Amino acid sequence: MSKWIWKFGEFEVYHNLLLHNRRQQYGYPEPVVWKLYAPEPVVHFRKKVTTDGGVIRIRACGNFSVTIGGDMPWEQKKYGGQSEITLEPGTVTISIRVAGKNTFPCLFVDGAVESDASWEADDLSGNWAAVGCYDCFQDPDKTPEVFPFSYEKIDYVKKEVLPEGVLFDFGKETFARTKFSGLTGEKVSVRFGESREEALDAKWCVIRFEDAPRKTFQTDGKEVSGGALSYEPYAFRFIFVSDKGAEVSAEYEYLPLTYRGEFHCDEEIINRVWDVAAYTFHLNSREFLLDGIKRDRWVWSADAYQSLFVNRYLFFDRELEKRTLIALGGKSPFKMHINTIMDYTFFWIISLYDYYYTYGDEDFLNQIFPQLDEVMSFCLGRTDEDGFMRGKPGDWIFIDWADMDKTGALCGEQILYARALENYSDICRITGKDDRGCRQRANLLREAIFRYFYDTEKKVFIDSYESGKRNVTRHSNILACLFLDCSEEQKKDIYQRVILNDEVAQITTPYFKFYENQVHCMAGNTKLLEESIRNYYGSMLALGATTLYEEYDPEKTGAEHYAMYGNPYEKSLCHAWSASPIYLLGCYRMGVKNTGLSYSSFDVRPVLGDMKSFSGKVPVPGGCVNVSVNEAEVRVLSEIPGGTLWVKERAYPLKAGVEIVVAL
Amino acid sequence: MSKWIWKFGEFEVYHNLLLHNRRQQYGYPEPVVWKLYAPEPVVHFRKKVTTDGGVIRIRACGNFSVTIGGDMPWEQKKYGGQSEITLEPGTVTISIRVAGKNTFPCLFVDGAVESDASWEADDLSGNWAAVGCYDCFQDPDKTPEVFPFSYEKIDYVKKEVLPEGVLFDFGKETFARTKFSGLTGEKVSVRFGESREEALDAKWCVIRFEDAPRKTFQTDGKEVSGGALSYEPYAFRFIFVSDKGAEVSAEYEYLPLTYRGEFHCDEEIINRVWDVAAYTFHLNSREFLLDGIKRDRWVWSADAYQSLFVNRYLFFDRELEKRTLIALGGKSPFKMHINTIMDYTFFWIISLYDYYYTYGDEDFLNQIFPQLDEVMSFCLGRTDEDGFMRGKPGDWIFIDWADMDKTGALCGEQILYARALENYSDICRITGKDDRGCRQRANLLREAIFRYFYDTEKKVFIDSYESGKRNVTRHSNILACLFLDCSEEQKKDIYQRVILNDEVAQITTPYFKFYENQVHCMAGNTKLLEESIRNYYGSMLALGATTLYEEYDPEKTGAEHYAMYGNPYEKSLCHAWSASPIYLLGCYRMGVKNTGLSYSSFDVRPVLGDMKSFSGKVPVPGGCVNVSVNEAEVRVLSEIPGGTLWVKERAYPLKAGVEIVVAL
Repeated sequence: MSKWIWKFGEFEVYHNLLLHNRRQQYGYPEPVVWKLYAPEPVVHFRKKVTTDGGVIRIRACGNFSVTIGGDMPWEQKKYGGQSEITLEPGTVTISIRVAGKNTFPCLFVDGAVESDASWEADDLSGNWAAVGCYDCFQDPDKTPEVFPFSYEKIDYVKKEVLPEGVLFDFGKETFARTKFSGLTGEKVSVRFGESREEALDAKWCVIRFEDAPRKTFQTDGKEVSGGALSYEPYAFRFIFVSDKGAEVSAEYEYLPLTYRGEFHCDEEIINRVWDVAAYTFHLNSREFLLDGIKRDRWVWSADAYQSLFVNRYLFFDRELEKRTLIALGGKSPFKMHINTIMDYTFFWIISLYDYYYTYGDEDFLNQIFPQLDEVMSFCLGRTDEDGFMRGKPGDWIFIDWADMDKTGALCGEQILYARALENYSDICRITGKDDRGCRQRANLLREAIFRYFYDTEKKVFIDSYESGKRNVTRHSNILACLFLDCSEEQKKDIYQRVILNDEVAQITTPYFKFYENQVHCMAGNTKLLEESIRNYYGSMLALGATTLYEEYDPEKTGAEHYAMYGNPYEKSLCHAWSASPIYLLGCYRMGVKNTGLSYSSFDVRPVLGDMKSFSGKVPVPGGCVNVSVNEAEVRVLSEIPGGTLWVKERAYPLKAGVEIVVAL
Repeated sequence: MSKWIWKFGEFEVYHNLLLHNRRQQYGYPEPVVWKLYAPEPVVHFRKKVTTDGGVIRIRACGNFSVTIGGDMPWEQKKYGGQSEITLEPGTVTISIRVAGKNTFPCLFVDGAVESDASWEADDLSGNWAAVGCYDCFQDPDKTPEVFPFSYEKIDYVKKEVLPEGVLFDFGKETFARTKFSGLTGEKVSVRFGESREEALDAKWCVIRFEDAPRKTFQTDGKEVSGGALSYEPYAFRFIFVSDKGAEVSAEYEYLPLTYRGEFHCDEEIINRVWDVAAYTFHLNSREFLLDGIKRDRWVWSADAYQSLFVNRYLFFDRELEKRTLIALGGKSPFKMHINTIMDYTFFWIISLYDYYYTYGDEDFLNQIFPQLDEVMSFCLGRTDEDGFMRGKPGDWIFIDWADMDKTGALCGEQILYARALENYSDICRITGKDDRGCRQRANLLREAIFRYFYDTEKKVFIDSYESGKRNVTRHSNILACLFLDCSEEQKKDIYQRVILNDEVAQITTPYFKFYENQVHCMAGNTKLLEESIRNYYGSMLALGATTLYEEYDPEKTGAEHYAMYGNPYEKSLCHAWSASPIYLLGCYRMGVKNTGLSYSSFDVRPVLGDMKSFSGKVPVPGGCVNVSVNEAEVRVLSEIPGGTLWVKERAYPLKAGVEIVVAL
C-alpha cells in the first residue's frame, strides 16, 4: 500500500510548530518560550526500483520535479512536474524533489511504484535516510498537512441567560471547535472557561475573544438577521457569549484511541478516579502528549516522560510516543536544552531507551540517532572536567518547583545525566554506533555522585556539595532511588530517613508526587497509593472536577482552586501528569511490568493494597493481561506468552490464553 | 527613525526561499537543486532602554508577546499582544517574542522607543546578536515580507496576429508582471520567450502556462465577455497568447538603482556594449545578484563573485552585495558546499573579505561571522591530512565547463582554498577572533601547491599530480595568476606558455573569460579587451541581442544561438556574467582601483587601449572619479581624497574636487 512519505521528523516538526503557535492567553496569541524549528523547504526523495514497467502517479504537498534513470546524469530523464509517468521495464532510480508551500514537503506515489518506508529522503544536504510515514496516511486525498483528528458533535447540558449574555455548560471539560450563530452585536465577547467563574470573568478568563460576527447569508444570497463566529478548538467546560441570542454548536476534536487498559475495584471512588484520569489523559493525547489541554497545550519533556508510563497502561499507543519523542528532539542545530531545561534533555534521552525497551522499535532508534547524537554532543560540550554538568547562562535547572540548594552541580541533574549517558550508550550498542566513551563516563559520573553527594553520616543524598550547606531534599533522594544504582540498603535508608521523615519538606507538585509514589510502591508501602487516590483525587472529584487538575490543595475553597502562578485561572484543570493512578494501579496493583525487550518477558505481581478486590487489563504487545484479585485468590490470563505470575515470592509461568488461579 | 528589524539573515533567508521557488520550466515549477533554509518560526527581540516614559507602539509580522521590566522575573510584567504600551520613566528591558505566520518574524516599534540596529534578536537558542535591518524599511505599513521593487508600465512595440494567436514584442528583453484580458478560450496558452522562436514554440518554450481565464466583472457585478489571466513577473521580450482577442498590460519590476558608473568612447560599438551590459546587469540585480533573469534566476556563488566586480563599477550598491552574501551563506546547519560546488564555497569566503575591503563594513563581518565560522569548520572537517581538499560524495568539483584532469586534489580548488583560508584569517583578525591556525594552513597549502602542482620544467601549473598525466589547462594557471602569490617571473611564464599558447585548449565560457581577461589586462595586453568586445559582444548585438547572452558562438546561426544544455531555448539571453566589460573598462581602462580599506587610498591608471578616446565615471564611496583620456592627455577629477593618478609610471596625488590634467 502506498503511503504519504516525508523526510523523517518533518511531520512532527510541522505539527509541533502549528501546535505551539496556537496558545491563547488573555486575548492574545502567546508564542512559545523555546526554540521551534521550521520544516525543510525542499526535500529530495528517491528509490531504486525494478519493475515490469507501467504508469506511476505522483502527488505532492508542494511543487515537485521528477528525474528517472540510472546513476549517471546522461542516463537520467527529467519529467518536471508531470503527475503521470510511464516507466519502461527495468531498474531505475526515481528521484523527486518537492518544494513545500507553507507546509512541509510530502510525497505520494502509486501505480507501478508505491511510496512507503523503503524510500529515502534528503534535505539536499547529502544526508539520505529512510523517510518518515504512518499507516494512517494511505489516502492520497488526505495529506499529512492536516492532522487526522476525529470529530463528534457534542451538546451543552445547560444554557443560562445572564444579564450580560449567555453561559453554556457542557457538563464536563472538553476540547472542541465551536460555531456561534444568532449574534446581533457589532462586537461579541466569547470566553472559554474550564470553570464557570473563569468563563464569567472578563478580565482573567485565559482563552477569550472579542470579535465582529460575520454576516450570514441564506442560499438565495439574502442576509439573515444575526451573525456568526467560529473558533478553532479550545479547552472548556463553560462558554460565555456576550449576546443573549447566541446559539452554539460544538464538535469534540480527539484522537480515536482505543482504551486497552481497564481497572475496576470494589471502591467506587478509585474506579471514578481511574475513569476520570483516563479521560484527562485522552484529552491530552493528541498530535503529541501534552501537559494540559488548556494551558500550556505545549509539549514538555518531563511531562511527556511521565505520560509514557500512563500510555503504556491505557492506550499502549506506540505512534503517540514516537511522535512526541521526535517533536521534543527538534532538529539540528540543537543549541539549548529541550524546553530550555537541563533535566528535560536527560528525560528525553532516557525516554528514547524506554520507548525502545517497550516496543522493540529498532528502526526508530536508527532514525532518531543523528538527532540524539547531536543532543549528546551538546551535553558533552557543556560537561565540566569533573564530569558534572552545571548550568550555563540561559539554562533552566529545574527538577521541581521546590526549595533546593542549586549551588554548582545539582545532585538530581547529575543522577539523570548518568542515566542518560548510560541509555545513550545502550542505544549506540543497539544501533551499532560508537558510544564515544559514554558508558565509562556514566560509570565515572555515578562514582562521583556517590563520592560528592552521598552523605555517609546522614546516609542520604545532598543537593549540592559546593555550597557547604549539605541540604537534604526529597527530590535528590527520590531520583537516586529511581535512576541511580543504589543498593537495597541505601534505598531503605533513604526511604526511612527522607521519604518517611516529615521533617524533610514535602513534595508539593503532582509532577514529583508521581516519582515519590513510585518509591512508595517500590518500598512495598501498600496503603499509601489508595489513601492518596482517595484523599487527593477523591476530594478533587467531590468538588466537581470532571478532569484532574494540575495541582490540588484540599485546604483551599471555591475559585481558589483555579488559581496558579499568581493568576486566578491559570491552573490547568485537565493535566496529563495527574493521570498517574492509571500507571500506578497498573504497575503496582495489577502488577504487570515489562522485564525483557518489548515484553519478551514480563512479570505480573498483583498486590491488593488497600482494596478488597479488583480486576482489570493491562495492554501488552499484541494483546493484554487480565488480572483479577480478591482476598481469596489471584486470577491472571495473559493473551501473550512470556509472563511470570508472582504470588508470595513464588513464580508461576504464564501460558498465552491459559488462566492461572492462585489461592491466597 | 524606527525601522523594521529581524534576526540577522532572516530577511535574506526568506526572500532567497521565495526566489528559488519561483523558477518555471516547461510548464512546471522547478524546485532548486541545493539546500534551502526556512526562516526561524519564532524570534525573540530585546533592548534595554532608559526613557522618560511614554507610549510605545508595536507592530509585528506574526503574533507577538511583550515583556517589560528588570533583569529578574519578578521585575517583569507581561503585556501579551498589546500594541500600545505606556512606559514608566526609567531603565527597563523591552523583550518581544514574535511568531511568524508563513513569512518571517519582524518587528517595528515606535513612539518612546524605536526599533533599529541597536536591538538584539535570538531564535530562542540563546544566541543573542544584533538584528538585521535596512534603511528602506522605515514605513510601518510596508513590511519586509514584501521585497520593495519598483514598477513601471511598459508597452509592447509590435502586436502580430498569427493563425494560432497573438505575439507581442516588447522590443527588448524585460522582466515584468503581466495581465491578459479579452480571452475567450476555455484554456489559454501563454508563452514568455526571450526570443521570437521561443515564444512560438509550444514544446520547448521554457516559461509557459496553460490556464483557464478568470471571468471578469464590471463594477455593477455583471459578467463581461472575455476572461483574464495574470502572472507574476517573468523574463521575456516576446509573449505569445493562444487567443486572438488577447490584450496585455505589463509592469516592469525592478530595483531602482542609480547608475553611478559611466563610460563613453569614440567607438560606438563599445559604447553600445557598455550600455547593454549595464541593462543586462540591472535586470539581474534584484533581491540578490542573479545568474540570469530567465534561467536559472537563482543565486550562484561564483556568478555573484563576478557580479560584485561589475557592481563596484556601475551601481556601487553595498546592500545588494550584502544581501547576496548573506543569502549565499545560508545558515546552520551547513552540510554541503554552497550551490553544492566546492569552488563556490571558497568564492563566498573570498567575497566576504572583498566586500569588507571595498566598503569597510566591519559590522557586517561581525554579523556574518558565526556562519562563516561554521562554513570554515565544514571545510576544515573535509580537509585531508596533506592540507588538500578533495571531493566527497555529493560535492561538485566544478571550476568550469571544461576538460580538466580532476583526479584527486584539483589544482584550481587548492588555489582558491588557500585564498579562502587567508581571507578567513584576515576576517578573524579584523573581528578579534582566533583564526584556528588558518593563516598557517594557508601558507602551508600554498607551499604544497607549488611543490605538487608547479611543473618546474614546463614552468606552469598542472591540474592533478595524482593521476600522473600532468595535464595543463588555462584554468589552473589563470587561477594561479589571480589568487596565488606567484612571482612576476612565474606569471610571465604562465602568460607566455599557457595564455598565449594556442595549443592549450581555449576557454569556452564567458564565466572563465572574465578571469582570463583579467589576466590579459594585468599582463598589459592592451588591445585584446577591445577586440573581444567588438568581436564577441559586438557581433552578438549585431544579431539583435538586446541583453547579453550567457554564451555566444559567432559560428552559429539563427535560433541555434538560443540552444544550450541540449535544449533549444535553455540558454539565458540575459546573463549577469556577460556584463564584465563594465568592470574591465572601469578597472583596466579608466583604471580606478581600490588599494586601501574602502578607498582610503586608490589608484587611477588610465589606459587608452585600442580606443582613441574615452571618458567616464567610476563610483567610489561618497562620490565618483571622472576620467577622460585621449591621445593627447589624461584628465582626472576625483570627488574624494586618497587617489593617486599614475601616468607613465609617475604618480600624481589627487585632491578631492581638483582636476588634474597630464599630457601624454
